[in-house]
Amino acid sequence: EDVGEHLPAGMKNIIAGKKLKFYVIDAVKIASELGLGSRINMIMMAAFFKLANVIDYADAERYMKEAVQKSYGKKGEKVVAMNNAAIDNAISNLKEVQYPECWATTTEGVPMNHVKGDAYTNDVISPILHQEGNKLPVSKFDPAGRVPTGTAKYEKRGIAVKVPHWIIENCIQCNQCSLVCPHAVIRPALIAAGEETPAGFETKPAIGKAFSGYQYRIQVSPLDCTGCGNCADVCPAKNKALVMEPLESQLDEQPKFDFVATRKQPDVALNTTTVKDSQFLQPLFEFSGACAGCGETPYVKLITQLFGDRMVIANATGCSSIYGGSAPTVPYTVNSKGHGPAWANSLFEDNAEFGFGMCLSINQRRNYVASALEKLVESEKSSEALKAACNDWLANKDSAEGSKKASQALRAAVADIPEGACELVDAVKQNDDMLVKKSIWILGGDGWAYDIGYGGLDHVLAMGEDVNILVMDTEVYSNTGGQSSKATPTGSVAKFAAAGKRTRKKDLGMMAMSYGYVYVASVAMGANQSQLLKAVNEAESYNGPSLIIAYSPCINHGINMGKSQAEAKKAVETGYWPLYRFNPTLADEGKNPFVLDSKAPTGNYGDFLAGETRYKTLTQEFPETAEHLFAKAEAEAKKRLETYQKLAEETIL
Amino acid sequence: EDVGEHLPAGMKNIIAGKKLKFYVIDAVKIASELGLGSRINMIMMAAFFKLANVIDYADAERYMKEAVQKSYGKKGEKVVAMNNAAIDNAISNLKEVQYPECWATTTEGVPMNHVKGDAYTNDVISPILHQEGNKLPVSKFDPAGRVPTGTAKYEKRGIAVKVPHWIIENCIQCNQCSLVCPHAVIRPALIAAGEETPAGFETKPAIGKAFSGYQYRIQVSPLDCTGCGNCADVCPAKNKALVMEPLESQLDEQPKFDFVATRKQPDVALNTTTVKDSQFLQPLFEFSGACAGCGETPYVKLITQLFGDRMVIANATGCSSIYGGSAPTVPYTVNSKGHGPAWANSLFEDNAEFGFGMCLSINQRRNYVASALEKLVESEKSSEALKAACNDWLANKDSAEGSKKASQALRAAVADIPEGACELVDAVKQNDDMLVKKSIWILGGDGWAYDIGYGGLDHVLAMGEDVNILVMDTEVYSNTGGQSSKATPTGSVAKFAAAGKRTRKKDLGMMAMSYGYVYVASVAMGANQSQLLKAVNEAESYNGPSLIIAYSPCINHGINMGKSQAEAKKAVETGYWPLYRFNPTLADEGKNPFVLDSKAPTGNYGDFLAGETRYKTLTQEFPETAEHLFAKAEAEAKKRLETYQKLAEETIL
Repeated sequence: EDVGEHLPAGMKNIIAGKKLKFYVIDAVKIASELGLGSRINMIMMAAFFKLANVIDYADAERYMKEAVQKSYGKKGEKVVAMNNAAIDNAISNLKEVQYPECWATTTEGVPMNHVKGDAYTNDVISPILHQEGNKLPVSKFDPAGRVPTGTAKYEKRGIAVKVPHWIIENCIQCNQCSLVCPHAVIRPALIAAGEETPAGFETKPAIGKAFSGYQYRIQVSPLDCTGCGNCADVCPAKNKALVMEPLESQLDEQPKFDFVATRKQPDVALNTTTVKDSQFLQPLFEFSGACAGCGETPYVKLITQLFGDRMVIANATGCSSIYGGSAPTVPYTVNSKGHGPAWANSLFEDNAEFGFGMCLSINQRRNYVASALEKLVESEKSSEALKAACNDWLANKDSAEGSKKASQALRAAVADIPEGACELVDAVKQNDDMLVKKSIWILGGDGWAYDIGYGGLDHVLAMGEDVNILVMDTEVYSNTGGQSSKATPTGSVAKFAAAGKRTRKKDLGMMAMSYGYVYVASVAMGANQSQLLKAVNEAESYNGPSLIIAYSPCINHGINMGKSQAEAKKAVETGYWPLYRFNPTLADEGKNPFVLDSKAPTGNYGDFLAGETRYKTLTQEFPETAEHLFAKAEAEAKKRLETYQKLAEETIL
Repeated sequence: EDVGEHLPAGMKNIIAGKKLKFYVIDAVKIASELGLGSRINMIMMAAFFKLANVIDYADAERYMKEAVQKSYGKKGEKVVAMNNAAIDNAISNLKEVQYPECWATTTEGVPMNHVKGDAYTNDVISPILHQEGNKLPVSKFDPAGRVPTGTAKYEKRGIAVKVPHWIIENCIQCNQCSLVCPHAVIRPALIAAGEETPAGFETKPAIGKAFSGYQYRIQVSPLDCTGCGNCADVCPAKNKALVMEPLESQLDEQPKFDFVATRKQPDVALNTTTVKDSQFLQPLFEFSGACAGCGETPYVKLITQLFGDRMVIANATGCSSIYGGSAPTVPYTVNSKGHGPAWANSLFEDNAEFGFGMCLSINQRRNYVASALEKLVESEKSSEALKAACNDWLANKDSAEGSKKASQALRAAVADIPEGACELVDAVKQNDDMLVKKSIWILGGDGWAYDIGYGGLDHVLAMGEDVNILVMDTEVYSNTGGQSSKATPTGSVAKFAAAGKRTRKKDLGMMAMSYGYVYVASVAMGANQSQLLKAVNEAESYNGPSLIIAYSPCINHGINMGKSQAEAKKAVETGYWPLYRFNPTLADEGKNPFVLDSKAPTGNYGDFLAGETRYKTLTQEFPETAEHLFAKAEAEAKKRLETYQKLAEETIL
């Protein structure tokens, strides 16, 4: 009855003008009632065949049900029955809309949802999103091939059925919801006394000595949310402070979010090695196109919060290169100073080398600046103030915060020296982008790191330069369609391992630790957030190569992605995934560099496998093989943990 | 005076016919007296400039002495002085030959040294060696691109100045001289009672129960020897049983060697896991073009002795691909049955994969044979005798010796079945080359294994198939000119590490051991021959991937290559190179798979470094850096040994 209220006038004109038959179906409701969650694909397909009438519907129904058996048979009878019911219910729930004739000429309706933003967004992104990209002239693009970042925020896709609603009185202000959100749609805000806020912007006094006098609020962006629900799932409050509510009910939150996202957080001293404090930092990676509940993106987001304003990223091909830079929008963004990650993607087979090249060129340019400053210090022409600024920078060149401060002072000291007056000063000004120490990150998945790009990854680790490598380990080639990689554990079903992988998961961390001078950490956000924060901060500050291997639940695992964080927790509790840190700095201090952060397993290993379709499938198809391979997998995991326990007990590596 | 006695008639005709000025110089004698060993390059260059008169000789002398300073300055003043003396002595020792006029028309002289052998050698190799290869028609070559092996033996280069002379009464029959010979020119022979032997073929009663009744002899091939002298150096007899004598004095030995090399060794039961017995096996790799004293080739030779008759080799680019298959001759050869290694070389970056492909295709073809035999067993038409032969083969398919015997029986069982009578029998006959189990070897140097080909090497190890990988570790890119690789240790001077390598040697063995199911051994022939024999035999028999990392002294190290075996001994004694074996079979038996075979270091680490130019150079050029890096290198080696000691003390991996 109310369909007309949701359509733009232009769309109504076309429907009525062409006298189209117009149907609606509440596929989300059907799917939800059948237990299919948000999976509406079968319902929509049935509706299409019923209405399009391209083949006899009885045939179509038969084909679809055969396809259901073929596609989902491995997942068990229950899933088959649900999908068959989806087909049946689709037909009985199709409703024809009897629209009035006035639709043919009406000028009333909701506005067309054109993406609007900065000039690049209006001129380039909007046409591309409206399928008109091929009309764009070359002159609209940067000849250097650069693309502005910070444009995903203009999409406001509104694709979630349900989004989190904050219940202020239940909130304990832990900020875990913000940490785990794969799309950066949850922001804790600190409001200074007297700051003007939008209507309905409820807050409560901020907990914690550092935040004394501030008000606190969790702010959700409903239109950027994908509705995974991990935030509500991880909320540790006695009574949940986040509950999932229909999108429509939360649209009033959007202006409040826009306020939070565009204002500058007050300048409170933060301890960014803690989960809570880290979340008051602005994410410089937001609203990507990653799957709802993605296990990878929360890691990327966290790293941009901590180091994004001086970050350079080399991204391997894979999911992270797709959600990281899908034309036309870019989820990497900038802070209020215009600083944010610089990002580029090379190939599967050379991404570590690509990032290493970035590192070397930056080193080269920063050393050039350093040599100019050394000459300025020695020059008779330089004022004492300039010499002091140069010396300060030289002393702080390789310190993240130190170089920020020293750069500001240096800029001030040379600001009044006109161009051409001094070659050395000109050189410094021309390399202004090199003044602050960079945080170089090489990102990719296990297909890259364990397999195709491993030769390069190993080489770059060996070179000893200060690069940070994040491997988002989904234990399978995710983006290219679920092929087995050397990260795939024994017994897991994947392409090229249809009857279960026969060989154990490669121990990439152990191989990197064998160098002795490589920082290595194995982390799982859902299992131990504090350990993750420690690892990321240690890795970045280590003056040498660092490797973080991050357990990343994935739709390829066949799990409920609304509980992807909880699944990672199970992985660690059952001994499936170990947590550890290997810090060469400790060895330099005469201590054991290896610290095992995960406790002895408490959960049942087999139960963990049984909870994921990638393993369950094997039990259904090849029960004997499954029993054998799962026992082998469990023994291998046990053995690996024993090895790590020994490494932790005494200094061996 | 006697030059005329050493020249062919044709050469004399040209010299005298063109009225050439003709000089001789005893460069070997000059070099030897100056302490330059066999290095005659500077002497010959000086002679050339003096005689050719292309520039004023005073200038030439100045340029040469400047070049000596530039090239050898790093090696110390003594080396510079020796080379300058070589230039001076060259000029004073040039002797003009006053030849008689009759040379213009003489028909007397030694025969031209044309290489003669089988048809391929006469038709193809000989013209190529005489610089006439471009006159060869395409029809002389195999359209499949195959080249016959076993042709290096026709070269008989006679390049050694001194060759080993066997002193029968001193010999203790240990066969170590044979093991270490890089060019397979020393062969222990067992002579049965009553066997006819050439004149002067002295023997002594063979020691050892298994050899009772046989006579024993060490036979040298003077014309194939390169004169390195390692055989004499390693001879453990109280009074050396091998001494180096001028080549001319040993030429009578050549017919005796030809006798030994072409006869079949008597069929004595050998324990080929021992050094002594292994050397009674025929080397199927002989007379390669490797440097005198090469540290790599003794390993390759040994492996061909043990497994060569059923061996397939994928060879990475590098020294081993050059001496392994330099057109036009091939050092790989065949035994009396025509069986020997099949060899091919692919690229630096894919050799492990290349060998893996060989493995997979052989597995596929052998499985095809197996399935044909299984059907033959089930067929009513098969005779009981045929069924028994099939079953025997199926039971012994994956046993080296078992499959040899079963293949003979199977061949006999199907011999009388005519072609076309039975498709299955035809299939077996068509795959006759697949009946004996193959020994698949992937060979290469550290540039390949640690660097360029490492991604593939790691992948092939991970796949779990039964391949054997031999890494001949010279710790530097040898063939391409001495560039640093990830195998190059801290402090070593190499290209790209001119001021000493800053990072430690990659622990390739540890990385491979992390898989758990990869056999790994670190060996050094000069240090522990028995451990090497154990490792090679264990690796080959292990039904899974094996990796042998073999310390290989090299001319790039700047050592006396006549003592390359002794140098490897020092490397182990000083803790520079560890010996160990990691055998997954032991783990399956509940034992510790890791065995440390080298003892606690006794020698001085610094003394070892000081004995090799690759390290000594750094001390001369950058003494402070050298001190720092050598201390670092020693600490790293110590740490590595401690890690291995812990791995050996309790089961950790």
